[in-house]
Amino acid sequence: MTNEYPRTPRNTVKRVPKRGHYDQETVYRILDDGFLAHVGFEVDGQPFVIPTAYGRQGDTIYLHGATTSRLIQQGQSGIRMCLTVTHLDGIVLARSAFHHSMNYRSAILFGTATLVPDDEKEQALLVISEQILKGRWAESRLPNDKELKATSVLAFRIEEASAKIRTGGPKDEPEDHVLPIWAGVLPLSPVYGAPVPDEELTEGIPLPPSVKRVKGEG
Amino acid sequence: MTNEYPRTPRNTVKRVPKRGHYDQETVYRILDDGFLAHVGFEVDGQPFVIPTAYGRQGDTIYLHGATTSRLIQQGQSGIRMCLTVTHLDGIVLARSAFHHSMNYRSAILFGTATLVPDDEKEQALLVISEQILKGRWAESRLPNDKELKATSVLAFRIEEASAKIRTGGPKDEPEDHVLPIWAGVLPLSPVYGAPVPDEELTEGIPLPPSVKRVKGEG
Repeated sequence: MTNEYPRTPRNTVKRVPKRGHYDQETVYRILDDGFLAHVGFEVDGQPFVIPTAYGRQGDTIYLHGATTSRLIQQGQSGIRMCLTVTHLDGIVLARSAFHHSMNYRSAILFGTATLVPDDEKEQALLVISEQILKGRWAESRLPNDKELKATSVLAFRIEEASAKIRTGGPKDEPEDHVLPIWAGVLPLSPVYGAPVPDEELTEGIPLPPSVKRVKGEG
Repeated sequence: MTNEYPRTPRNTVKRVPKRGHYDQETVYRILDDGFLAHVGFEVDGQPFVIPTAYGRQGDTIYLHGATTSRLIQQGQSGIRMCLTVTHLDGIVLARSAFHHSMNYRSAILFGTATLVPDDEKEQALLVISEQILKGRWAESRLPNDKELKATSVLAFRIEEASAKIRTGGPKDEPEDHVLPIWAGVLPLSPVYGAPVPDEELTEGIPLPPSVKRVKGEG
């Protein structure tokens, strides 16, 4: 049995309820498949939606930024936040304009954040780094005290969560099946291109294992 | 001369100001390169961030949904909204963990929405459809009255906007250049896969021009 997040009016999927999921395993899987979140919070009556990298550890989502950034400044004040991660998997082409759709997996998290204390900051940054590119942290020159001071990390705690998933082909009206219109799915996925070495890279340094792995050469 | 959006404390890029852009042309280019937005709004003190498709026409962003959806219900009430579009173009690998970064283009729009009147709804849906897949609307069976009634469209008006762009390689500290660590950019882009025909597709119907075009076969 997997844990379930509590269902409330807030996180219950209203439209197409069968696409809604509330189990931790499904939510974690969507979070672990990405590293870019859109974080929402309100300041003086205006909502902000900020794209930012993240790393997950259990029910904690780490977000980092300059100490002076709006996300860090507002987030540490304890205001309500929403963190959304979306994977767009394809465009669903139906025979009818109305039944066009998208295949996607999204997770919407509600909660609040706290500032990660100094002595836990480096570990939290490692979690974010590993989420973006596994193995890269150990390949890098690690942060010094000055760099750690310039960076702040928020620990966002998942209080409520829901996932929404659509897969499969178009759902046309039965009477539209006879129409001479192509229908199906146009899959879409993020693909890594050929690595571009830094112009000043010392000659003879090979591609690191972290990059080889995502390029399928590891 | 291109038009500039007004600069306010809200939309002024605080972190790394040289990455901030306020001209309409730059904002439009980012919007026109995508069709998925993350829309933020607050309900009863809780921010929501909802992923949704969009279409741009001038300074108007059309969003559609079921009439009963939270986005449509809240959006038409005139509450403040934020609409963010992000393109992740690559992971920037520096020699130091601290200087790791992302290449990205994002546009953050502030404004409010109104409900599109019934007699303008079909035109607004066409704008969204064209943004997702150019030419598909004309290939499809167009919406009937019942379908149009089930769909609502919001017209979000851009009041303030900013774009943030990072391109190029890592910016390591000069003293780190001697380290035997690979540095560079791992490019990332969304790629369309091979179209998957609907299981019930009538035999002999060829791929439509809209799909051929994005697959580079048009």
